[in-house]
Amino acid sequence: MKTKKAAIVGASGYSGEVLVQLLLNHPHAELVAVTSRQNAGQPLAQIFPKFASHPKSKTLRFSEPNAEVLAKQADIVFLALPHGVAAEFAVPLLQLGCQVIDLSADFRLRSAEVYKEFYAHDHPAPELLAKAVYGLPEVYRKEIKTAQLVAAPGCYPTSILLPLIPLLQAGLINPAGIIADSLSGVSGAGRKAEVDYLFCECNESVRAYGVPKHRHLSEIEQELSLAAGTKVTLQFTPHLIPVNRGIHTTLYLAPEKNFTTAAEAAALGEKIAACYVKAYANEPFVRLLEGKALPDTKNVVGTNVCEIAWRLDPRTGRLIVLSAEDNLVKGASGQAVQSMNLVCGWPETAGLV
Amino acid sequence: MKTKKAAIVGASGYSGEVLVQLLLNHPHAELVAVTSRQNAGQPLAQIFPKFASHPKSKTLRFSEPNAEVLAKQADIVFLALPHGVAAEFAVPLLQLGCQVIDLSADFRLRSAEVYKEFYAHDHPAPELLAKAVYGLPEVYRKEIKTAQLVAAPGCYPTSILLPLIPLLQAGLINPAGIIADSLSGVSGAGRKAEVDYLFCECNESVRAYGVPKHRHLSEIEQELSLAAGTKVTLQFTPHLIPVNRGIHTTLYLAPEKNFTTAAEAAALGEKIAACYVKAYANEPFVRLLEGKALPDTKNVVGTNVCEIAWRLDPRTGRLIVLSAEDNLVKGASGQAVQSMNLVCGWPETAGLV
Amino acid sequence: MKTKKAAIVGASGYSGEVLVQLLLNHPHAELVAVTSRQNAGQPLAQIFPKFASHPKSKTLRFSEPNAEVLAKQADIVFLALPHGVAAEFAVPLLQLGCQVIDLSADFRLRSAEVYKEFYAHDHPAPELLAKAVYGLPEVYRKEIKTAQLVAAPGCYPTSILLPLIPLLQAGLINPAGIIADSLSGVSGAGRKAEVDYLFCECNESVRAYGVPKHRHLSEIEQELSLAAGTKVTLQFTPHLIPVNRGIHTTLYLAPEKNFTTAAEAAALGEKIAACYVKAYANEPFVRLLEGKALPDTKNVVGTNVCEIAWRLDPRTGRLIVLSAEDNLVKGASGQAVQSMNLVCGWPETAGLV
Amino acid sequence: MKTKKAAIVGASGYSGEVLVQLLLNHPHAELVAVTSRQNAGQPLAQIFPKFASHPKSKTLRFSEPNAEVLAKQADIVFLALPHGVAAEFAVPLLQLGCQVIDLSADFRLRSAEVYKEFYAHDHPAPELLAKAVYGLPEVYRKEIKTAQLVAAPGCYPTSILLPLIPLLQAGLINPAGIIADSLSGVSGAGRKAEVDYLFCECNESVRAYGVPKHRHLSEIEQELSLAAGTKVTLQFTPHLIPVNRGIHTTLYLAPEKNFTTAAEAAALGEKIAACYVKAYANEPFVRLLEGKALPDTKNVVGTNVCEIAWRLDPRTGRLIVLSAEDNLVKGASGQAVQSMNLVCGWPETAGLV
Repeated sequence: MKTKKAAIVGASGYSGEVLVQLLLNHPHAELVAVTSRQNAGQPLAQIFPKFASHPKSKTLRFSEPNAEVLAKQADIVFLALPHGVAAEFAVPLLQLGCQVIDLSADFRLRSAEVYKEFYAHDHPAPELLAKAVYGLPEVYRKEIKTAQLVAAPGCYPTSILLPLIPLLQAGLINPAGIIADSLSGVSGAGRKAEVDYLFCECNESVRAYGVPKHRHLSEIEQELSLAAGTKVTLQFTPHLIPVNRGIHTTLYLAPEKNFTTAAEAAALGEKIAACYVKAYANEPFVRLLEGKALPDTKNVVGTNVCEIAWRLDPRTGRLIVLSAEDNLVKGASGQAVQSMNLVCGWPETAGLV
Repeated sequence: MKTKKAAIVGASGYSGEVLVQLLLNHPHAELVAVTSRQNAGQPLAQIFPKFASHPKSKTLRFSEPNAEVLAKQADIVFLALPHGVAAEFAVPLLQLGCQVIDLSADFRLRSAEVYKEFYAHDHPAPELLAKAVYGLPEVYRKEIKTAQLVAAPGCYPTSILLPLIPLLQAGLINPAGIIADSLSGVSGAGRKAEVDYLFCECNESVRAYGVPKHRHLSEIEQELSLAAGTKVTLQFTPHLIPVNRGIHTTLYLAPEKNFTTAAEAAALGEKIAACYVKAYANEPFVRLLEGKALPDTKNVVGTNVCEIAWRLDPRTGRLIVLSAEDNLVKGASGQAVQSMNLVCGWPETAGLV
Repeated sequence: MKTKKAAIVGASGYSGEVLVQLLLNHPHAELVAVTSRQNAGQPLAQIFPKFASHPKSKTLRFSEPNAEVLAKQADIVFLALPHGVAAEFAVPLLQLGCQVIDLSADFRLRSAEVYKEFYAHDHPAPELLAKAVYGLPEVYRKEIKTAQLVAAPGCYPTSILLPLIPLLQAGLINPAGIIADSLSGVSGAGRKAEVDYLFCECNESVRAYGVPKHRHLSEIEQELSLAAGTKVTLQFTPHLIPVNRGIHTTLYLAPEKNFTTAAEAAALGEKIAACYVKAYANEPFVRLLEGKALPDTKNVVGTNVCEIAWRLDPRTGRLIVLSAEDNLVKGASGQAVQSMNLVCGWPETAGLV
Repeated sequence: MKTKKAAIVGASGYSGEVLVQLLLNHPHAELVAVTSRQNAGQPLAQIFPKFASHPKSKTLRFSEPNAEVLAKQADIVFLALPHGVAAEFAVPLLQLGCQVIDLSADFRLRSAEVYKEFYAHDHPAPELLAKAVYGLPEVYRKEIKTAQLVAAPGCYPTSILLPLIPLLQAGLINPAGIIADSLSGVSGAGRKAEVDYLFCECNESVRAYGVPKHRHLSEIEQELSLAAGTKVTLQFTPHLIPVNRGIHTTLYLAPEKNFTTAAEAAALGEKIAACYVKAYANEPFVRLLEGKALPDTKNVVGTNVCEIAWRLDPRTGRLIVLSAEDNLVKGASGQAVQSMNLVCGWPETAGLV
């Protein structure tokens, strides 16, 4: 299989670190450049000692990000940058013929207006929005394969969209009134020197934040609306919990069909089970839990897997769906690599566990 | 103020430990006996080294629990026992004239049938159910003052009832469709030698459990129904998170009155604020957060305080209410001491912070 | 007992927070002022929501630190400031007649030269060094009572000096070759917005730092040398572990008298036990552990207690002594309050547990 | 390369879990059997949901351990059992021609007497002690290649032996008076349902244990003595810290040659550096840290790497050496796989990172 050269712009954050790890160990991609404004000039292993033992890491050194230089070095460029900044690099890199996989929010939305509403500034490159493909392989596999610009989904969105989209597409749940209650590890906040994310501020603490209008709502609602065929407005509450990595989401849903008898519940349960099996039984990175098992972040951290389980509640008539993923892998860098594999025609699971 | 003598039956679990701490430092109660089947005969400080420096701890030694002996030693007896077992002690202690404050679930329900449905065995002393008072002082202050048997509420119930009851009593929210999503520290599972609660099974992990029918639903729904004047069925999902102590609850509610304009939202917001101020502005152990603040378990752990904040979401039309408490203090032993203070005619805040 | 008015300069760090807590609940001191350059003008409860429920907190608001203003408001001023900065306030406050209790390193050393060696700048007020008393009450109780300027010891030093000083004074151990291996919770690093102390950098991590010459060595060696009557050079290795609060120290010592037989070991053991009993049996804040118990930070966190245990190792001929304390209480603010109690003639344990 | 079949006896503990993970992903070994008395009959993925997505896991089910059955199924058998029990399986498995890699302490010692002293029972198969090879590849690579029975080293021993052996062999340090102060994550205690290892007992806690005579001393002293050519008696203090995985060791050493001047220190430093470079520069799983870097467990967890750094302390004349490893990988299962690779003639790094 033909090897391709990959670069990471903004490689010193937590997503960047996981991208480095995945690409250093990828069977077909070769990591040729890592950039970081603040660490430019330093060897990779000085910032990330854990990569020091990797033979391929020896020659890697952080450089200043420069689109022209990167386009000469790499076939594929990952952008692990803040929103707004990513677009500045995407524009020239695409013009210079690179494949771009952007982990920021810059190209996830189809509407520049919605972008402005949620991110509070004009979209820096609205002409690219139509070109970008939302990098959720379980939904957009075909489109990703031929995309030059992939917008890797956010961490919360992935944990919410994977369990919801099949149910909405199958018309099994009411698209109105959906609630997503999510819990995230602290790495979701990035490697930023802020008091709020100090060890002593997060340890032995749990708190909600961004209530009630978190930025990720924009992309979640866009994709849910597409799946439902009608505008979906979501209730979403993120909470910060003291783990390094992992997102757990609990979804509260109203089945389209009421169930009051045990027979009705059983019939509905069979439809839900069949819907998920059809959607995910052959997906390498979605795990449908069986029996009494419920998602647990410790079973997915370090992997590209999203766990899903569900329960019907005969007392309330609701369907409860639960999911767990690693926010830095399936919620960010792993999913980006999964898209790279599709773009490059490699096995979709190459370099991922 | 007249001192009374207090005893704790089942003092070697986490709630028992906090009870010991509160009673050792209480200005009016004197801790005279602690029982523990497994630790009978051992000095208190051998099991809990942290009490070794307390002058009053020197003479305390765990004894076998015996109702007749306890009734001679103590005026007030706290039962920190599993459900089913607590009633065995409550019956003789009450007959012998003790005040009993039970931290188990045995006397929280008014219906022996509901008890059987949720606890899977016949109620061990149904004749006492009418006599027991639900020990939530913010709601039942008057009744607690004259109760011989107080049933201290569960940890989850306290975090859910305190924010909901005033809204239901005021008719501000629809009693149908309420959702409570709760996160609890591991001490909620008790000091039990089970693999599920080992450090390595809980650390770097988050998981839901008891989905969809947790036992605490029975007492929560009973009290919500009384507040609403109509039967309330609750959706409740507890999650286990890696902190020692603390419960955070996020409530998803439908206001009785829709709000679509900013003016309607403002008007509704004023009503909600006024409702909470009326209910809790003078309560020593409920803290209504202002401005941008949201509840955080680290701000209540070690105290008897329950924090409450709320937000109206104009996008979904919902009211989101959030609360935080220490599951072992306001959610168990602190609230039990608060009830003791009422029963004994002491200042309600005595020995509590 | 006569109440005195207290102020805290630099009250927004972790030591400052604990000082606020202790003084708000102190029976004889009244907290009248808290200063913080960055939070000046804000209510205390906005920065520390957990104090919002405290009745005395309502009127407290952070002010700009100003010695003249403070001297008018307060009888006693606590300085919870970085070294170098503390002296700037101590000088005028002392001149204006205040009692000063400094939690920084500025007045712990008797020699301005040693200060310069370890803190890399000239001492800002060398004329005060002779006036200052090292605020370790178990050793300098008498001197503290009449001191105008108390230098509260560092957190590591307290955990090392309390176990060592009695042994050195009694001549039971060789003052040469002492090793102190210490583990500290992350609050020891202060509430500083630095990447090194982010949750994800400290959680699931343990690392040594400041090897081999940590600044605290200067005050530890000064005090050990005074106790031994000869110059002591210490080997000291601090490690950062993922807990909020707590220091654990393991000391490796050579007894002055060799022991090879069981009888010799028993005889030496009796001398050590007697030495500690004599030094600490009546000390309210030192807990000598008995039997198989070993120090555990979870048994001292939140208290002003230092736990001590020891073992003779017949295989190596060494004496191992272990200690545990809360770095923010006995290692900082609690010990400072203990000194305040002595200075003011109040019971030494007032306001402390 | 020829594939071999591997089995794990006692696969439901923490070491067993890591072994399963390593063998499922190994390029040359095929995991054909996992045994567990308590889980016999259950699918692998029911006990370890995280393996459910692995294609090779589908057919794996825990079986009752039976040496004859295992010998028919597998070429290589890993024993992840308690000491004493492992030997029961090793004896028949060796007779039946299997390669055995034992992770227990049963075959680490050369002397049955020392075994009895430290493990408090007679050695169950003393005739095998001469046959077993201590599975520390960096020291016994040649012997492991031809061994039928490999005794994988303990977790603490690995973290202590790797930094010490080259220094002792080179005669750079005094073999007398060595101190090893170690910190271990809680997984070191195994997946045992004991109150001491509950989340709430370990979180926010640090404590020493096994002071002063831990069982691991026996194998550490055996190997240090062999390296030094003289009997070595070690001071060793293990501590439990609240992380899942990782061991950090700080070693206090006396250089054979005193250094008092800067020139002497520099000369000695060069010798130490050269000694480590010679021993480990080409070792894939030992990482010598440079510059200001110190070992940090977070940089080795999940890998088979042991990090080492050292400092000379001119104030005390001592050499401080620090190491970090993952107790379940380099300290147990990873090292066992490294030995398997040697035994089977595969690349030593196969299946390891």
